[in-house]
Amino acid sequence: MTPANTVLAISGGVGGAKLALGLERVLPAGELAVLVNTGDDFTHLGLRICPDLDTLLYTLGGVVHTGQGWGRADESFCFMDELRRQGGPDWFLLGDRDLVLHVERTRRLAAGERLTALTAEFAQRFGVRSRLLPMSDSPVATLLDTDAGELEFQHYFVRLRCTPAVRALRFAGAAQARPTEELLNVLHSKALQAVILCPSNPYLSIDPILAIPGLSAALRASQVPIIAVSPLIGGRAVKGPTAKIMQELGVQASPASIAAHYAGLIDGLVIDHADATDARGLSVPVVCTDTLMSTLADRERVASIAVEFAATLRARAVIRSRA
Amino acid sequence: MTPANTVLAISGGVGGAKLALGLERVLPAGELAVLVNTGDDFTHLGLRICPDLDTLLYTLGGVVHTGQGWGRADESFCFMDELRRQGGPDWFLLGDRDLVLHVERTRRLAAGERLTALTAEFAQRFGVRSRLLPMSDSPVATLLDTDAGELEFQHYFVRLRCTPAVRALRFAGAAQARPTEELLNVLHSKALQAVILCPSNPYLSIDPILAIPGLSAALRASQVPIIAVSPLIGGRAVKGPTAKIMQELGVQASPASIAAHYAGLIDGLVIDHADATDARGLSVPVVCTDTLMSTLADRERVASIAVEFAATLRARAVIRSRA
Repeated sequence: MTPANTVLAISGGVGGAKLALGLERVLPAGELAVLVNTGDDFTHLGLRICPDLDTLLYTLGGVVHTGQGWGRADESFCFMDELRRQGGPDWFLLGDRDLVLHVERTRRLAAGERLTALTAEFAQRFGVRSRLLPMSDSPVATLLDTDAGELEFQHYFVRLRCTPAVRALRFAGAAQARPTEELLNVLHSKALQAVILCPSNPYLSIDPILAIPGLSAALRASQVPIIAVSPLIGGRAVKGPTAKIMQELGVQASPASIAAHYAGLIDGLVIDHADATDARGLSVPVVCTDTLMSTLADRERVASIAVEFAATLRARAVIRSRA
Repeated sequence: MTPANTVLAISGGVGGAKLALGLERVLPAGELAVLVNTGDDFTHLGLRICPDLDTLLYTLGGVVHTGQGWGRADESFCFMDELRRQGGPDWFLLGDRDLVLHVERTRRLAAGERLTALTAEFAQRFGVRSRLLPMSDSPVATLLDTDAGELEFQHYFVRLRCTPAVRALRFAGAAQARPTEELLNVLHSKALQAVILCPSNPYLSIDPILAIPGLSAALRASQVPIIAVSPLIGGRAVKGPTAKIMQELGVQASPASIAAHYAGLIDGLVIDHADATDARGLSVPVVCTDTLMSTLADRERVASIAVEFAATLRARAVIRSRA
């Protein structure tokens, strides 16, 4: 019998996957479910690509390129090399092995299969012990209003390396998207004990998830503690444009801003020691620790702290009245 | 200005491509057009694959794996290796570099582009000096009625290695398919001097082409000599199941059978010395030579003989009244 999921992690790509791996390792086998952002998904060369799902798949499947945090360690780029030689677009790196998933996903989605079912099959194929759940089976696209015009996510993130200044974001398709039955079952399950927002970019990776009305409502209605791990360390992001975007949106890159961003949703916030002085007077309970996850031991430690924090809040029945 | 096409070769895959390469090398640059079978085309892993067109592209583009006669010399198989590891179908070999064409073709055909236009672009990209013309822009599928049931071409040819006995063939979609404007222009051009049926399998590679009514009619109406190079050497095929299929269909594997198969279409037949004794009393003029094309010099020699044979027939105004 499959164990029930006791923890639901909510994740974007690289940073989220690190904490998800830590959670998987500190929890009993099969108890972790990961709700993954699909706002980054796009169609490139006619192939449907789900970067965050694949990062989780490769990370939890033990084949990730640990140095870069995404893609596979055992990868080659002959397809890419030939594509470039023939004058094709080479700004989005597609490994020869990575392509297997994109080709199969494209075909099967076109044949009417659900992304959730496909993802479960891929996870099994890679020996992933946790449950990977896309935020929706309907396409949602994160679009950025920037000083270089409106950009699709991957064009902003990969092609332009986050250089344009962000003025606003929207999530095309989110209002019409529905949470999957699988996700709602996890959220409604009596076994669930905690929801943990991974230290992913709140604007780029978590907001697309919260933009799905039914999913946001189900999270807010949940009776288990929801805690977030701040993506900031000393007011800066470990990786990616979190702090840059906060600045561009006129928000201070501080724990207070993260807490305010998630106000009405979270019951606690894990922050880094480096931000401890900025954390006074926050509206939610805070735990300070070293949140940098360089090693596997770091990931397990941060994961344990998050799980214990949630357990403490749960024991104290500290669940905010959520907006 | 592009030179007008003076010779139209009609070709399947490997064997046809060898003669096409010879023809390209003995004719002035740009004078060769190659009409290519697309009855072998199929959709695999959601990708649209055109094996004969690609064999011509790689052969005339100088990147073919000369040992096997198809695929690329500078190829790697990491995608295939991973596909196999994940339990995917591995019976049809797809190289990492080869995939670039399949992915792009699939996307652009789905977007409504014509196979003929795409093929011309690919040919230019590979520096092919001759013109590559698919037999139609509409899909036609060669289906084999065998003792193992009805089989799609690639399943018969590659997956089952031509093992099942063939009872009949049909070309799904051929009756509805139309010859392209580009092909008709070549056939109607005053510059055209000869049509040469390459030593491809008459049943598998040439018949799908002749099964397109408008194309067959245009060929038969042509006022230039049409000659065929027999695929048999001493009653056997150099490669592939030609002789095996002839036997299964109750036809003797001889030049007479090839001439009878193309009766009403061809004006002359090039056969191998080894079949000379079987060639007496044929209904069309015959030229005997060594038709085995092992070396580049062989290909040029057979090509020259075919071109000269056609020129002789043309000079003597020997054009059969065609059925």
